[in-house]
Amino acid sequence: MKEDPKKQSHLFKKPETCIFCNVVNNEIERYVVFEDSQSIAFLDMKPLFPGHVLLVPKMHYSEIDQIPGKTIDVLFNNVKLLSKAVESSLGADGTFIAVNNKVSQSVPHLHIHIVPRKFKDGLKGFFWPRYKYSSKEEIEKIKDKIANAIK
Amino acid sequence: MKEDPKKQSHLFKKPETCIFCNVVNNEIERYVVFEDSQSIAFLDMKPLFPGHVLLVPKMHYSEIDQIPGKTIDVLFNNVKLLSKAVESSLGADGTFIAVNNKVSQSVPHLHIHIVPRKFKDGLKGFFWPRYKYSSKEEIEKIKDKIANAIK
Repeated sequence: MKEDPKKQSHLFKKPETCIFCNVVNNEIERYVVFEDSQSIAFLDMKPLFPGHVLLVPKMHYSEIDQIPGKTIDVLFNNVKLLSKAVESSLGADGTFIAVNNKVSQSVPHLHIHIVPRKFKDGLKGFFWPRYKYSSKEEIEKIKDKIANAIK
Repeated sequence: MKEDPKKQSHLFKKPETCIFCNVVNNEIERYVVFEDSQSIAFLDMKPLFPGHVLLVPKMHYSEIDQIPGKTIDVLFNNVKLLSKAVESSLGADGTFIAVNNKVSQSVPHLHIHIVPRKFKDGLKGFFWPRYKYSSKEEIEKIKDKIANAIK
């Protein structure tokens, strides 16, 4: 019998050692910019730009689906706070806020990137190339799939 | 006297015509996957990958700082819902969730990207190259700047 691939994924169980749990527990070097009872924000050591912050829930959740609604509220209000702080303190023009949920997620403890941006900082191209829908039918079909999954 | 550059920005006032307000008001072609009293989610017409969804608040806010806390709660719980729906309905391995806050923001009505991802879909490189902090002192200095902006 074939195993459910999800059950085999490293993302679905807490690993023996989680580097972000280590950060939460103050077991490794960390540069904390903000902390409350449910979350902690610290500098990414391989920043996209200086001042790139990661916000994590203190509980080990690997993906967004697992995070309780009340914790989502706290986390993303903290994202708003951090975005403003990163921007004002570093003289940035804006921020880039991102979550790699399972794919491209380097550490399997959900983390939200808050990155200071400047106009013409060279990052503009990351969102390309774009896909082109071949027809209205394709668009409708995909729309219905997603809408039906929510119902 | 020099004007506050923020006051001059197109992002700080509602433009005469906002394409996402047009979507909210059903004034242009749109492919809606989800809607509630405060937000609406629809297909991006220039998707990164098919099924790329944009979630917007129905009120015109240009940036995350302007969005009230209660609306943040609603929006990001909807992001969680949409992420799950996009992934399950399209057989994706995960999702990419992102906000371009002012910089690289093509439409000045805040929108959250929810993009289906597959392992090895070719998008992995977008987060590079990374910056390298020159010293611990630089790291400490930047950490303090952000932390002090929050206090």
